Amino acid sequence: MSHALLSELRELLGPTHVLTDGDLSAWERDWRKRYHGKALAVVRPGSTEEVAAVVQACGLHDVSIVPQGGNTGLVGGGVPDDSGRQVLLSLSRMNRVRAIDPANLTMTVDAGCILQQVQQAADDAGLLFPLSLAAEGSCTIGGNLSTNAGGTQVLRYGNARELCLGLEVVTAAGEVWDGLSGLRKDNTGYDLRDLFVGSEGTLGIITGATLKLYPRPVGRRTALAAARNLDQAVALLELARRHLDAGLTGFEVMSAFSLQLVGKHFPQIPNPFPAAPWSILLELVASDDAQAQAALESVLGLALEQGLIDDAVVAESLAQSQALWHLRESISLAQSEEGLNIKHDISLPVSAIPAFVAQTDAALQARVPGVRLVNFGHLGDGNLHYNVQAPEGESAPAFLAAHEEAFNALVYDAVCRFGGSISAEHGIGTLKREQLPQYKSPVALRLMRQIKTALDPLGRLNPNRVL
Amino acid sequence: MSHALLSELRELLGPTHVLTDGDLSAWERDWRKRYHGKALAVVRPGSTEEVAAVVQACGLHDVSIVPQGGNTGLVGGGVPDDSGRQVLLSLSRMNRVRAIDPANLTMTVDAGCILQQVQQAADDAGLLFPLSLAAEGSCTIGGNLSTNAGGTQVLRYGNARELCLGLEVVTAAGEVWDGLSGLRKDNTGYDLRDLFVGSEGTLGIITGATLKLYPRPVGRRTALAAARNLDQAVALLELARRHLDAGLTGFEVMSAFSLQLVGKHFPQIPNPFPAAPWSILLELVASDDAQAQAALESVLGLALEQGLIDDAVVAESLAQSQALWHLRESISLAQSEEGLNIKHDISLPVSAIPAFVAQTDAALQARVPGVRLVNFGHLGDGNLHYNVQAPEGESAPAFLAAHEEAFNALVYDAVCRFGGSISAEHGIGTLKREQLPQYKSPVALRLMRQIKTALDPLGRLNPNRVL
Repeated sequence: MSHALLSELRELLGPTHVLTDGDLSAWERDWRKRYHGKALAVVRPGSTEEVAAVVQACGLHDVSIVPQGGNTGLVGGGVPDDSGRQVLLSLSRMNRVRAIDPANLTMTVDAGCILQQVQQAADDAGLLFPLSLAAEGSCTIGGNLSTNAGGTQVLRYGNARELCLGLEVVTAAGEVWDGLSGLRKDNTGYDLRDLFVGSEGTLGIITGATLKLYPRPVGRRTALAAARNLDQAVALLELARRHLDAGLTGFEVMSAFSLQLVGKHFPQIPNPFPAAPWSILLELVASDDAQAQAALESVLGLALEQGLIDDAVVAESLAQSQALWHLRESISLAQSEEGLNIKHDISLPVSAIPAFVAQTDAALQARVPGVRLVNFGHLGDGNLHYNVQAPEGESAPAFLAAHEEAFNALVYDAVCRFGGSISAEHGIGTLKREQLPQYKSPVALRLMRQIKTALDPLGRLNPNRVL
Repeated sequence: MSHALLSELRELLGPTHVLTDGDLSAWERDWRKRYHGKALAVVRPGSTEEVAAVVQACGLHDVSIVPQGGNTGLVGGGVPDDSGRQVLLSLSRMNRVRAIDPANLTMTVDAGCILQQVQQAADDAGLLFPLSLAAEGSCTIGGNLSTNAGGTQVLRYGNARELCLGLEVVTAAGEVWDGLSGLRKDNTGYDLRDLFVGSEGTLGIITGATLKLYPRPVGRRTALAAARNLDQAVALLELARRHLDAGLTGFEVMSAFSLQLVGKHFPQIPNPFPAAPWSILLELVASDDAQAQAALESVLGLALEQGLIDDAVVAESLAQSQALWHLRESISLAQSEEGLNIKHDISLPVSAIPAFVAQTDAALQARVPGVRLVNFGHLGDGNLHYNVQAPEGESAPAFLAAHEEAFNALVYDAVCRFGGSISAEHGIGTLKREQLPQYKSPVALRLMRQIKTALDPLGRLNPNRVL
């Protein structure tokens, strides 16, 4: 039966786009190397029609499909299981920018376009596609949409969901839904778009999207502020929002220990406030650089006066701005250098963050004295990367083996008590699938299952992910 | 059987909140007086638990429910049919502001809160809830969300959907989904929120919502520009967006004839450019009024230099700003004074609007020479109120009877050709239900029906609306 399907797929796509032999780990293993499956075949359709044909063929042979973009996901949602019975459908050959409409501020692209390619195409048209995240050189826009990616510009521009106006989707039945609308307003029925966005390939396969573009900001500056505690950071956020409004495009916090790790592994990166318990990176856009710089200086001056921060430095050039971002972006790498840790991508109401961190830090310390917390993230969006590293000198693998499960429960229970989410931007995939029922309301789970059953009754699309 | 249900409902809510006698037209007739039904009863639950109990009781008696907010909808989606067998469930007694969280910029409210009350509560906290529309004194936030209302601030802040972070919903099974999250990022499963938003009460009954708040803009100014044609208006929009970015909160166009109607029926309202084919209202927020005024003067100066507009006036006070908005907001009333007309609430890619209007105006004139087009709307969102009035001196009712159906088809066919939507912000309801299958893709309709069947298998919630 599998052989018959493989022949059909080769017929449909050409033999070079149906891979069954050799090293397929680029598709079968996830980026963080936590999941390694075995596919019946890796297929690489070149068009929406070919995707639909693959779905239909797999349906006839009762074979399930795992869609994959750039394979940079963090929750194991885009690699096959180890049954050798799933078809891995890579969208990577579908990488055309289909159209740009500057007067409508929209761009229509294939799902397999690399995010950086989308950003570049917007830039070439004198416009901005604001989605920006660490994997942008290899992740695809289809993957970004199917996981509702976040990144560093959410405060101003929203998540991937808010940046998408229309979708083209191949359904579980192998039909093509052409919802590639470039409309800002369309109240003709249920919001199918947002149902597919964030569904991690379990309800349909995104093959194309119409994206929102923005005028490219002319001026941009970054600043760093030193705060004693997270209460101050939250108060600074309020002040900055009030004074800078939509100009505020970034508000990132970094704990002292996060930056100590950067200093340890990348000593060449300067840290303006090594003694500060918290460093806060602010980014502002304005009509020119000088105006952005002046506005940042003014609001940080006010914050100093009000005692919200202890010190501040405003970048005076693009290079200085980039150096501050470099500090922030080096935390993940520095963590990897330091060894495995227990990662939590969580979100909370901004107002709840200081109490959450105080209580959870204390609870973890009480369990394992000397445990080290790598706490940083997008405070403006209420999103923390709250990671737990073994005490100095202890073996990281042993630490994870001993504590990962209990620490996850401790952290997620606390998140739940404070009205937060156990997955802010990474999704559920395989990694958090078993935990979801403990933290999501049974009514929500029931509604989700009803929707899954309605749109994919035979469970052919990315089965056993999310639900 | 109905009697048994009525007794149960009286038991549940108290007899004063189950209305069956007297004049119930406030609930049974829609605001535009196009639909007048007959309910089995009008019930007014006072809490989420009571809403759930009503849904369960109606379920046991196989009686369907029409949820209603402020009864200001424009498509007949919130009034009962004439069977006398439906329960009209009014949310109006549920009107508490449950909580405001300034540091998180969120507010949680009952669905029956009047929009103006929500705006006022935000304002009292020194913050802004930006949704704003003509019916704001009587529409409810639950109605706004279930129809995904638009209004005048969409360009900057988005539709009702984009202003909502979390929902509380009573499902068709009478369960309560507590999705009242105040999170900006939450990727734990399917986007149930946006499925209920805009579903017009057909998938669940919204009983509460957590809304996004914004810092209250300190400075605000309005300007009016005179343009020769819509190409110029679109070019001015591009220029204004590039220079004013997120500060641009309004960009409304008004055809000469729209403003002539205002002049005829409300001669006391001044019109700065009576000879202009198109008048464009721009609104800008900034850190103070003077800065807003200066920025508008600068960008309109540039537009004059580039020949994009013929003239412009920038308000020099709040009173002048309000006078310009008053001109815009009087168009609907002036139309009513002039008599019935054929209304189209449509959206298009902004780039397609000039060609759409030119071709459709010409086609309508060819059908009925002398026909008068009341064309105005939110150009910044691609949303036109493209209304057709009888030729001067002709009877409006006779004109509608003769041409409404054909003109709807002509306009909607053109909308469809240009990639637009036949309902930008008003929804489908009863009014456009029969037209929807002609203009929506069969795949989308199939997906919508699958979702309706999954979430409301017995068709108890607002049946025969939307689908």
